[in-house]
Amino acid sequence: MEDNAVIFIGDKPVMNYVLALMTQFNKPVSRVTLKARGRSISRAVDAAEIAKNRFMPNLRVLGITIGTEAIPNDEGRTVNVSSMEIVLAKHE
Amino acid sequence: MEDNAVIFIGDKPVMNYVLALMTQFNKPVSRVTLKARGRSISRAVDAAEIAKNRFMPNLRVLGITIGTEAIPNDEGRTVNVSSMEIVLAKHE
Repeated sequence: MEDNAVIFIGDKPVMNYVLALMTQFNKPVSRVTLKARGRSISRAVDAAEIAKNRFMPNLRVLGITIGTEAIPNDEGRTVNVSSMEIVLAKHE
Repeated sequence: MEDNAVIFIGDKPVMNYVLALMTQFNKPVSRVTLKARGRSISRAVDAAEIAKNRFMPNLRVLGITIGTEAIPNDEGRTVNVSSMEIVLAKHE
């Protein structure tokens, strides 16, 4: 069993990420990590909650961490952006 | 010592919440919880990260939880909104 899958949360509709999450757990992997930065952070929370409440009642949040990443912008400078990781697992 | 303070994160500029956080820790309280819903979730992460990185290097994240809240809207129906709580403490 593959140990861990990572889904990067971007600007797509939240259901795309819910579907990606469920697809990963069908492979099966033991853990899926949602990674998001900036405004996408709230979408990552939405994806985890929608997956759990509507489709996978046995989904569990193993841990949530936050941090700051320095991202180079178009002008060659770096800007600090908040990041979040949500680690999810299926409770058997 | 007051045990826990709660700051609700809304639509104001993020530095308002950073200031509120630092004000609470000067009282002093042992823990401050940031609570946010929907789009404000990323602002709560920003507030915690800015406070830690710029002003309070001894700030620690004790725990982060996510959930879903049913909020009544103007039409009398309820909509589900993601929520997050970040519990912070000063490491002495």
